[in-house]
Amino acid sequence: MQNPTAAMLAIGDEILSGRTQDANMHHLAQELTAAGIDLRECRVVADDHDAIVEAVRALSSRWDHVFTSGGIGPTHDDITADAIAAAFDRPIDVRADARALLAAHYAASGRELNAARLRMARIPDGAALIENPISTAPGFILENVHVMAGVPAIFRAMLASVLPGLTGGAPIQSRTLRVERPEGDVAEVLGAVAAECPDLSIGSYPFVEAGVLGTNLVLRGPDPDRLEAALAELKRRFGGLA
Amino acid sequence: MQNPTAAMLAIGDEILSGRTQDANMHHLAQELTAAGIDLRECRVVADDHDAIVEAVRALSSRWDHVFTSGGIGPTHDDITADAIAAAFDRPIDVRADARALLAAHYAASGRELNAARLRMARIPDGAALIENPISTAPGFILENVHVMAGVPAIFRAMLASVLPGLTGGAPIQSRTLRVERPEGDVAEVLGAVAAECPDLSIGSYPFVEAGVLGTNLVLRGPDPDRLEAALAELKRRFGGLA
Repeated sequence: MQNPTAAMLAIGDEILSGRTQDANMHHLAQELTAAGIDLRECRVVADDHDAIVEAVRALSSRWDHVFTSGGIGPTHDDITADAIAAAFDRPIDVRADARALLAAHYAASGRELNAARLRMARIPDGAALIENPISTAPGFILENVHVMAGVPAIFRAMLASVLPGLTGGAPIQSRTLRVERPEGDVAEVLGAVAAECPDLSIGSYPFVEAGVLGTNLVLRGPDPDRLEAALAELKRRFGGLA
Repeated sequence: MQNPTAAMLAIGDEILSGRTQDANMHHLAQELTAAGIDLRECRVVADDHDAIVEAVRALSSRWDHVFTSGGIGPTHDDITADAIAAAFDRPIDVRADARALLAAHYAASGRELNAARLRMARIPDGAALIENPISTAPGFILENVHVMAGVPAIFRAMLASVLPGLTGGAPIQSRTLRVERPEGDVAEVLGAVAAECPDLSIGSYPFVEAGVLGTNLVLRGPDPDRLEAALAELKRRFGGLA
């Protein structure tokens, strides 16, 4: 059985301009891997309506789940919610449940629920809200797209609340074998073992440490027995070099 | 005049599995911004021939320049060069100039130029080589696609050697105004100024410091005079709060 698949769409000029380094992709990749969901593609697009709409449609139709980050705040450049609604041809307006959350939050903090903040209650018809335990303004789920904040702490909290609701496959596990030989010396054997184990993903990652050229061989797959068998085979073939 | 546009394609299961955090996108974004080239889209795909071919074709036809990272090493999962050749319907084989570079390098280091390492001399017909001052195996330029290594130090060295050959536009500069008010309080004024300055990109980035909710307002554009004028207008409207 294939694991479910997923894609990420990060939205924001600040990433593309180099002002901010995206921190959410790596976290999402680790969490999905642990949940048995295969992250297969990531994209980063600008705060541009048409670019967001096109990317959401492409990723949503291709993969089982899509996770977006960014563009759901109160300012003029926060256009994600409207773009998601457009991607699925859904109406969007301030919704009573989201508005009630914001009204309670700002009343408690003594700040005004002004027009800008009310934009954060714009939710497409038919979407389910995602809780925001940090700053209240919710994310939402529409079709197979999970729309979340770009601020890393909020992205993580939202992901933690939606992941348990997704059906994962077998968690992908990994085994690493450190070999103190350069990548070009291990490539032939590694390729042969990879060909014998089409159910595993086998990668090689060169390193240099204290003048030694070495390679980390990483085996990935859902079945621990298969991983151990392939690991043993690699150890056997590389003998005392590992 | 519009600045030239660019996209990045990062290739590698290790990023999508969460094993490795991509470090090249942020560096590329900063370097292109400084060079007056607008990075408009990034994608990450797996070590999958069809996925690479499709992404290269989509990005190459849409943007002026494409920069790829990863998948040009000696092992079985290094399939980028063949995928790039396929994307442009070019023949690919071990090329004499690339082979000569590798032969000299391995002769000097006393290591064997074996079949696995020779794969790194597979270069599509018509491509120009990109120098690799760190480990010799070259990248290449085919059409508008710059094919570079995923190892950050090599990616940076290759980028440094190709950037001077690209015609950039006016470098994009930025100005930041720190305002100690939450994003929702500055959104209305910020949106009005953004509407008055369609030639500038204006973003807002909330922060929390020592219990204070604040917002960094970031203005970006090629014309320093326009930036200073907009900055002055924002300072005026936010008065002593900035």
